[in-house]
Amino acid sequence: MIETIHVIGARGRVGGAVSERLAERGVRLNAREPDLVLLCVPDRAIAEVALTLPLGPWIGHVSGATGLDALAPHTRRLSLHPLQSFTKARGAEQLDGAWAAVTAASSEARSIGFWLAETLGLRAFELSDDRRAAYHAGAAIASNYLVTLRAAAGRLLEAAGAPPEALDPLMRRVIDNGFELTGPIARGDWETVERHLEAIREHAPELEELYLLLAEATAAVAGREFPRYELQQGESTR
Amino acid sequence: MIETIHVIGARGRVGGAVSERLAERGVRLNAREPDLVLLCVPDRAIAEVALTLPLGPWIGHVSGATGLDALAPHTRRLSLHPLQSFTKARGAEQLDGAWAAVTAASSEARSIGFWLAETLGLRAFELSDDRRAAYHAGAAIASNYLVTLRAAAGRLLEAAGAPPEALDPLMRRVIDNGFELTGPIARGDWETVERHLEAIREHAPELEELYLLLAEATAAVAGREFPRYELQQGESTR
Repeated sequence: MIETIHVIGARGRVGGAVSERLAERGVRLNAREPDLVLLCVPDRAIAEVALTLPLGPWIGHVSGATGLDALAPHTRRLSLHPLQSFTKARGAEQLDGAWAAVTAASSEARSIGFWLAETLGLRAFELSDDRRAAYHAGAAIASNYLVTLRAAAGRLLEAAGAPPEALDPLMRRVIDNGFELTGPIARGDWETVERHLEAIREHAPELEELYLLLAEATAAVAGREFPRYELQQGESTR
Repeated sequence: MIETIHVIGARGRVGGAVSERLAERGVRLNAREPDLVLLCVPDRAIAEVALTLPLGPWIGHVSGATGLDALAPHTRRLSLHPLQSFTKARGAEQLDGAWAAVTAASSEARSIGFWLAETLGLRAFELSDDRRAAYHAGAAIASNYLVTLRAAAGRLLEAAGAPPEALDPLMRRVIDNGFELTGPIARGDWETVERHLEAIREHAPELEELYLLLAEATAAVAGREFPRYELQQGESTR
């Protein structure tokens, strides 16, 4: 059904990987009258670019945060968000193993979205536009806040004179082992938690509130009641 | 210097992997008078087991949270903590690529600790006993709170009708790409953050405080000033 695709933003992080993969799969990219125009542009540019495009072909974007209405006035529209972190240093292989959220307002659009995901080597699931913000919040917690978690943990390793990068094989393995919860909170070992808090107050007091809130959330994951700790040196900022 | 090692707790998660690797490397494990006794037992059992052992050989433990004083009355002592998450479903290969914190009170003990790390296939760094709590807090944040982060993010994907496991290739890649911060907070896109908050208040209000505190910490990582948001439906628990 789709034989030619025009990728706008083919030099970007996502557009580069997508274009390379489409070419590998034999999709024609430089047709004068494409069946689908795929916008791989920054979120804030999507609506503007969509407005400049002639009506007729299918149109799609690859943003996780942006609704289909940004593609107005086009009505033959869809979105496909690869749930992956892309870098320009790598190519199409970045798509391998990743999932993709497909949003579509008609069954035809849905078929095209799922076909596109399969062609790209992505595992598709459907996402409705009205649930998009919850989906994107989850994706941001998993990816962006992971960076923050590593920064916080790395700061404590530095305070201990240990190399922060020593955390990375540990974090990979926690993922590989299916996120099994171990450690002091899983065991209900509140003495160790107390020692952590003392060390954080001494070496990185700005992390105290975050440590406590995450400890409490972790206790909930473990099904344990969390003792009441008072925030001390770290000042609440809200 | 060390030719024979007695591993106590060789059927446990860590002890199993350690014993298997030592055997692979030709270390004799079942000598009557070992050069080193290595306690691979739960943290709370270390002091008790150490007390029962005859003085003479070197003694070590593999706990990240426990000080060398738990090995009293032995004075020829050290600890080696493999910074890794172990499962009984796997063997010695779990040690490959991981780091290890070596704690020792003498240069001889330090040499033995580093030799042991190398023999196990671990990359060693030195950790002083008085910085151990900061180190272990960092390790717990990176590994245990990673589970909590995934649970929170997964809950939002479920609320959106998306498969939580779709987050896992994304999280792996964030680590592989060196924890580069991308996403709305890196861009200062507070409209998207606001939409996340609305979705969280609707679908998972218990995550609001955690989302906000992590957003603020992420803004600090990005070097951006974070707008003031008021906590709404999610109730502060401290």
